[in-house]
Amino acid sequence: MAAQGNGIQLMDQDQLSTELIEAQYALKDTADKRNAKSVLILVSGIELAGKGEAVKQLREWVDPRYLRVKADAPQSFNHKQAFWQPYARFIPAEGQIMVMFGNWYSDLLTTSMHVSKPIDDTMFDDYVERMRAYEQDLKNNNVDVIKVWFDLSWKSLQKRLDDMDPGEVRWHKLHGLDWRSKKQYDSLQKLRQRFTDDWEIIDSEEEAERDQQFAQYILRTLKHCPEHLTKAKSRWKQAGVPDSLLQPAEAELEKSEYKDELNQLSKKVAEALRFDSRNIIIAFEGMDAAGKGGAIKRIVKKLDPREYEIYTIAAPEKYELRRPYLWRFWNKIQPEEKITIFDRTWYGRVLVERIEGFANEVEWQRAYDEINRFEKDLYDSQTVVVKFWLAISKDEQEVRFKAREETPHKRFKITEEDWRNRERWDDYLSAAADMLERTHTAHAPWHVISTNDKNTARLAVLHAILKQLKME
Amino acid sequence: MAAQGNGIQLMDQDQLSTELIEAQYALKDTADKRNAKSVLILVSGIELAGKGEAVKQLREWVDPRYLRVKADAPQSFNHKQAFWQPYARFIPAEGQIMVMFGNWYSDLLTTSMHVSKPIDDTMFDDYVERMRAYEQDLKNNNVDVIKVWFDLSWKSLQKRLDDMDPGEVRWHKLHGLDWRSKKQYDSLQKLRQRFTDDWEIIDSEEEAERDQQFAQYILRTLKHCPEHLTKAKSRWKQAGVPDSLLQPAEAELEKSEYKDELNQLSKKVAEALRFDSRNIIIAFEGMDAAGKGGAIKRIVKKLDPREYEIYTIAAPEKYELRRPYLWRFWNKIQPEEKITIFDRTWYGRVLVERIEGFANEVEWQRAYDEINRFEKDLYDSQTVVVKFWLAISKDEQEVRFKAREETPHKRFKITEEDWRNRERWDDYLSAAADMLERTHTAHAPWHVISTNDKNTARLAVLHAILKQLKME
Repeated sequence: MAAQGNGIQLMDQDQLSTELIEAQYALKDTADKRNAKSVLILVSGIELAGKGEAVKQLREWVDPRYLRVKADAPQSFNHKQAFWQPYARFIPAEGQIMVMFGNWYSDLLTTSMHVSKPIDDTMFDDYVERMRAYEQDLKNNNVDVIKVWFDLSWKSLQKRLDDMDPGEVRWHKLHGLDWRSKKQYDSLQKLRQRFTDDWEIIDSEEEAERDQQFAQYILRTLKHCPEHLTKAKSRWKQAGVPDSLLQPAEAELEKSEYKDELNQLSKKVAEALRFDSRNIIIAFEGMDAAGKGGAIKRIVKKLDPREYEIYTIAAPEKYELRRPYLWRFWNKIQPEEKITIFDRTWYGRVLVERIEGFANEVEWQRAYDEINRFEKDLYDSQTVVVKFWLAISKDEQEVRFKAREETPHKRFKITEEDWRNRERWDDYLSAAADMLERTHTAHAPWHVISTNDKNTARLAVLHAILKQLKME
Repeated sequence: MAAQGNGIQLMDQDQLSTELIEAQYALKDTADKRNAKSVLILVSGIELAGKGEAVKQLREWVDPRYLRVKADAPQSFNHKQAFWQPYARFIPAEGQIMVMFGNWYSDLLTTSMHVSKPIDDTMFDDYVERMRAYEQDLKNNNVDVIKVWFDLSWKSLQKRLDDMDPGEVRWHKLHGLDWRSKKQYDSLQKLRQRFTDDWEIIDSEEEAERDQQFAQYILRTLKHCPEHLTKAKSRWKQAGVPDSLLQPAEAELEKSEYKDELNQLSKKVAEALRFDSRNIIIAFEGMDAAGKGGAIKRIVKKLDPREYEIYTIAAPEKYELRRPYLWRFWNKIQPEEKITIFDRTWYGRVLVERIEGFANEVEWQRAYDEINRFEKDLYDSQTVVVKFWLAISKDEQEVRFKAREETPHKRFKITEEDWRNRERWDDYLSAAADMLERTHTAHAPWHVISTNDKNTARLAVLHAILKQLKME
């Protein structure tokens, strides 16, 4: 990562402003189109280099209504939150531009500079690598991420500190760092040298050049809105469908036996969930009528309703479609929520969206890795992800559909769409097979519950939770 | 508010469950229809009465996926936040059911019981009255609000405290109250007697009756989904259109004079906005091309981009249409945001929505009072609301439209829709006249800026801000 030096060609200001505004409106116009894109601008740098001034100048040149600015004071990492969690909500929608002053890099630097809890170089590099991966996922999902470092020499920093007007102090909170200490300045510079080389480094000695370099860089970014690829380059390697999906067990549990065990198990599960120090996410997938709702009911049986949250996932709304497909899940996972249950999940991308063509080839084929990274980030921030595929046979589904149609309070659960989905049974099995093969990981393993007996399935789900929490 | 006693008829549990689930699905099905409704259940009461247990039992009887529960610890009021602000985000969408343990009443009780900052009876009653008004607005906007108080005698409370298992303690945080103190118990009971009489009081001595009374009350609420009225009962009294809307001034400002004054004024405005201890909301309405964007640009000229937020209001999204129409504005106003600017506002309800028929007669006619209450709540929580109507003549609009079409970086600002809206010029003038007459209040006055000269308008906007902030 070499400083670009300057020698930047200054553009005429009216010309620059006109081009920026045109590019803004053109970007706005990409929403829902094949070249859809949003722009996320991460801004960091040396104190007093003039980040705020450069953004202010930019906002005067553009149409300020279509450039949002988010400014949080940098914070240390929370060990129960992935680095992207505090910011996920603010990822811009297609057509939008967002400048983030506080961002995952400023948090990383703050955490690293905090003497009492040092992060060593290996950890630091690992964070930087995962941030880069997260940003690549954003880019693949139409969020162009650019990173700008406003740099300033030690000498100029000291001079600016000398000259600082007390009225300005408001915007130069010093983040617990002593900018008069050469040692701290040097460690900070050493740390940011470890960033990846895709940062735009802005020499901030001269105001006019700084503002122009920044604005011109934004302009180039805005102007670049290529169409997204939709066809995969190579042939897809389909996984074989395992027996567990094809032939669920038939054995039925005796009712009294079930009741006794359920009672004991659900108490044990409630205790295990409650007293685990980690957050817990329980995710259900499976064919319609596979018993997701019933299993969830038994998990929460002995819990207080204030202890958990259930999300039933349906088709995304329009404002969600304008963001990365994982975005609506990022925002449902709250660090203060102990137990979160999903009735259908982010795996919709590689199941219904793949099968119905809502996601194109490139998108669903890329999704397995995106999901694995997502679950790994959760795992690394002290969150257990327990995943279930409930497998039943096609005949058993028919029996259950018909029973639903005949039971008054279950009639609502069955629709024309369920019968339509049933026609694509084999496609769903293939998609599930690929999913199981590609996303069964050490940090977030799949539990395939393969039985046509509801009660057996419910107990198996409870056992699997205890097992993954290492309580059994 | 008399306790209902008991003597409740216990229903068969399976029957109750079936009816609840059917009612849930029927409610879900009302979304986007003429009988659309959501249900918000506010739960409060004496500690250990069994609120949590009753909701838990309810959640076992219903389909738990369609009954969300939000549990916050009660908090004291924040003087920069209206009582509804912490909860607005969680108002359920049409078809949804939400149980709120922490709510504005628990906050009111917490604030009142907090000895260092007592609320006297008049203030308490005033809060209760405003909460009732807010709830009425919710009801009118398809959110049925029900309020349930779980009551318990002093004697039973003491017995339950004696018997309490330490494992249960987790769910009985005592909110800083000493439940062993008869005096505190009595003051709490005295306070809740001052609540309005639309609370359902549940005698919580007997568990089974408590749970059934609660569930049956919910069932009755879910079942009641009448069609909403759309036609007003009486004839609308149209306000006369004032001269300020009909005949904007023509005098043009000399350019150098403008530049000088703008420079001085924008500095003064930045200082005034920055150093006011209150939050500030600046709201712009006016015909297309009236100069809203240009005025906003001059307001923020001397501000740091981290100091303010601009919202450009377009048509609501589908998920917003399923909530009260003010909901999307409630959520944009953040207590930590010092300066918030709206380019078009909540007045869309009585302007474009009225004219285009997106809101029916009953809805837009009711909106004036809803808006006045909304702005009063903001005013009372230390927020200044500065409102502008920018008036230009119809000829001037045409001149500006044509200029936009001929200027490259403004071409994007003009669409077919703008020309169509122009055809309804007189309807907009009438609607604006009604709006000005009915929502020009002491706590949130309108500033009508009536001039065809852009520069004159910009300076007048800056002057008006200073004036309302009492800085001029």
